[in-house]
Amino acid sequence: MADTHGNESAKEPSKPGASFDLSSEEFRRLGHGVIDIMADIMDAERNDPVFPENSGSATRARFDLPLPTHGRTFDESLHQCNELLSGGLRRNGHPRFFAYVGASADPIGMFADAMCSALNQNVTAWRSAPAATEMERLVLRWLDEIVGFGGDGHGLLTSGGSAANAAGVSAALASAAQRNGGATSISRDRMTLYTSREGHLSLAKAARCAGLRDDHVRSIGVDDVRRMNVDELTATLRHDVDAGLHPACVCASAGTANTGAIDPLNDIASVCKRFNVWLHIDGAYGAPAAMTEEFAWMSRGFASANSLSLDPHKWLFAPLDVGCIIFRDAEITRRAFALSASYVTVRQTDEIESFAFFDHGVDLSRRFRALKVWMILTTRGTRAIADIIQRNIGLRKSLDKRIEGEPRLESLGSQLSICCFRFVPTGWTDADRINRINEQLIDQIVTEGHIFMSPTTLDGRFSLRVCIVNFRTQESDIDFLVNEVLRVGNGLANA
Amino acid sequence: MADTHGNESAKEPSKPGASFDLSSEEFRRLGHGVIDIMADIMDAERNDPVFPENSGSATRARFDLPLPTHGRTFDESLHQCNELLSGGLRRNGHPRFFAYVGASADPIGMFADAMCSALNQNVTAWRSAPAATEMERLVLRWLDEIVGFGGDGHGLLTSGGSAANAAGVSAALASAAQRNGGATSISRDRMTLYTSREGHLSLAKAARCAGLRDDHVRSIGVDDVRRMNVDELTATLRHDVDAGLHPACVCASAGTANTGAIDPLNDIASVCKRFNVWLHIDGAYGAPAAMTEEFAWMSRGFASANSLSLDPHKWLFAPLDVGCIIFRDAEITRRAFALSASYVTVRQTDEIESFAFFDHGVDLSRRFRALKVWMILTTRGTRAIADIIQRNIGLRKSLDKRIEGEPRLESLGSQLSICCFRFVPTGWTDADRINRINEQLIDQIVTEGHIFMSPTTLDGRFSLRVCIVNFRTQESDIDFLVNEVLRVGNGLANA
Repeated sequence: MADTHGNESAKEPSKPGASFDLSSEEFRRLGHGVIDIMADIMDAERNDPVFPENSGSATRARFDLPLPTHGRTFDESLHQCNELLSGGLRRNGHPRFFAYVGASADPIGMFADAMCSALNQNVTAWRSAPAATEMERLVLRWLDEIVGFGGDGHGLLTSGGSAANAAGVSAALASAAQRNGGATSISRDRMTLYTSREGHLSLAKAARCAGLRDDHVRSIGVDDVRRMNVDELTATLRHDVDAGLHPACVCASAGTANTGAIDPLNDIASVCKRFNVWLHIDGAYGAPAAMTEEFAWMSRGFASANSLSLDPHKWLFAPLDVGCIIFRDAEITRRAFALSASYVTVRQTDEIESFAFFDHGVDLSRRFRALKVWMILTTRGTRAIADIIQRNIGLRKSLDKRIEGEPRLESLGSQLSICCFRFVPTGWTDADRINRINEQLIDQIVTEGHIFMSPTTLDGRFSLRVCIVNFRTQESDIDFLVNEVLRVGNGLANA
Repeated sequence: MADTHGNESAKEPSKPGASFDLSSEEFRRLGHGVIDIMADIMDAERNDPVFPENSGSATRARFDLPLPTHGRTFDESLHQCNELLSGGLRRNGHPRFFAYVGASADPIGMFADAMCSALNQNVTAWRSAPAATEMERLVLRWLDEIVGFGGDGHGLLTSGGSAANAAGVSAALASAAQRNGGATSISRDRMTLYTSREGHLSLAKAARCAGLRDDHVRSIGVDDVRRMNVDELTATLRHDVDAGLHPACVCASAGTANTGAIDPLNDIASVCKRFNVWLHIDGAYGAPAAMTEEFAWMSRGFASANSLSLDPHKWLFAPLDVGCIIFRDAEITRRAFALSASYVTVRQTDEIESFAFFDHGVDLSRRFRALKVWMILTTRGTRAIADIIQRNIGLRKSLDKRIEGEPRLESLGSQLSICCFRFVPTGWTDADRINRINEQLIDQIVTEGHIFMSPTTLDGRFSLRVCIVNFRTQESDIDFLVNEVLRVGNGLANA
């Protein structure tokens, strides 16, 4: 049917019949080469420096390239690609990558992602991608079940936690507007949103993008382990209602990105019920911990929420990107997002066949993200995933114990799989001096390339922060980390 | 460092040291098998029915599966995956896929996407992914240059056109708020947005999600070829200003999804300048046509816009998903989106090293989408891509000629690579009857599986709609389409 040219044809001036197709043989030859490159990337992931030495100006200089007008072979592009990227890659799957909430990616998910690109399904709606739509709806039901949300798996896979949180906030605001007169009289000027001061920045950003005033995003205080203060939440809600404002959404966290704090979900749910306010739970990082016995209790809170976000590209080990938002009420999201246009008219009348994801979210074209989640869940099984989550939490506890046993290490709090601590040389008491040595310590450790951590600041104390969302991390990596912090810290203290 | 288990270990109960790693040999073995599956998908893309026969209930029944608690081999998952998907895949890269704005995907982009998943860079900011960030910034400069936006390539790769349009609208509203008192006194109650009634539904959706009232989204009328009526735009703007409203954004289209209409960009730009209103151009589909001689004139309009969206996963043939938004002013997006949190503090001070995409958009975690765009542009070159775009437009013109020569085919308008037409049996004049036979015609053609079209309705006339964004489509496919429409139409008329 179509012309099938070998890749060499890319060098020739394109002819009327030219195509970007590869012959089946050429596709296999080039593809097998790509797999070998990916295998090398996997080796480098474990063995290369976690973070390479580099600089902005040197990197930019490599990328100062003219627009390519003429084609070349794929092999030539691969060669240049390797030159450009080498020395500029952070190895997020390295067993001692401890920064942010960065996960190692399951190779099974990588293979599924490659198949996804080849299938190139556009998961707008059932009639555009019947199997892909049903697989996404199945995966959503499974994710709902995994964390104990207790709904029907109504929701969406998204590009990540920020998009998932934005979808939750959008639905909450639409719901609040419905209660106050319907979609045609939406006023966001008097709407308010509540999150703890440890809540993820994507929540405040979602509120801002949705037209809420920055000063209507209430930053509720936290207790000594950085969980939302429910009394303060209640008092703030009451104050706002008395002032004639419309509380639209409470955003609780099930595992903050900063310290892993889990807000008192059940108490917050009760408050939301009393004030008739939407409860969104940001479980982007922590929600899958509900798969473990230790954190199964979170499910009771999830089961009281109106929406929940969780990121398969974090603790379910999918490659970037795939986040997820689950809603309790499909009708709300339809009212929030459905808009019609003649070129997307759904002609089907059957309930399954007329389903359109774009009636329930912002995106029209959507990548077939469900495939990698389905492939990971079915190949690994939920028990093996839960075991690794539990092991990650166990490794954090091992780190806690090591810190407790080292007089020069001070714990600044540990929850879920995040541990915050710092190095305090014997006898040092000056706060600034202690902060400064920890800043130097993290800079040196990251530069040496065997460990990658990101810092945070807790009550003015500069903190080393270790987050473990990684199937490669072992006890030996924790030992290595502690020994390195002590070695580098002692060296700096004695300098 | 980490344990490397073969895939068979997935069957065993997980042990404390268990990992999802594959040995290098196992990775290669499984990966090469995946490439062979992808090659088969490519063959099916060209040779299988464009759309399979199926039903909602049958598809759903296949996907009624319990949550998998125990693991199994990847091969077992692949086998089930094949069973689940087969019969439920629309072949969007088929040479006779003419629906929506659906593109064929370049195999080179698929390979790059696979590498992207293996590298798993998180393109939040330079310090998290130096090379990936610089490659995205390079690709953005190239995309800016390709379409003649004439900026510095400031912007973002996004999940698609909807997210790109939402980013443009967000920045526009933030800019309008700045002019009216700053971010802390944002009021969207009196803001208005303007698009033609042929504008993409994502624009109205973005406005709604941003808190604008639905009745403040002005739907401007169009001329006889469905381009925005500039006089009506001007009158509406004047009326709104006089009424004390704040016009925040005019959204022009450079290729509507419905009929390919290109709004009078230069005239609209003048109006926007006069009223001091942000001009966003939705070029998700059509902007890359500026690479051709025939449509290079669009660049003058782009060069007057504040923001422009264009989708590399459409006419640059990247696999889903990758959209793009380009902005003229980096400071505006920083003011619109930048929020701080201690766990994402950027410690670098160098201008390149301190750059964070999350200061300029909604997402924090971001997939390394630039890799596939870079790989396609460098391997194919812009000339070959422009030639295929021009060929797609030429095929639409061939279709126009065929329609002109067939008394029973009536053109309902053609622009860019979209042609709308219908079948009118000799002597038929009843409008409903003509609509009905065209509905039957498209249903039958889609069911037969050799052609896929999506319909639209133009001034009450049910229309067959052909959109060609496909490097596989040839003249013979256009001939086949016309012959089939005539054959099926005649059959229905004579039934």
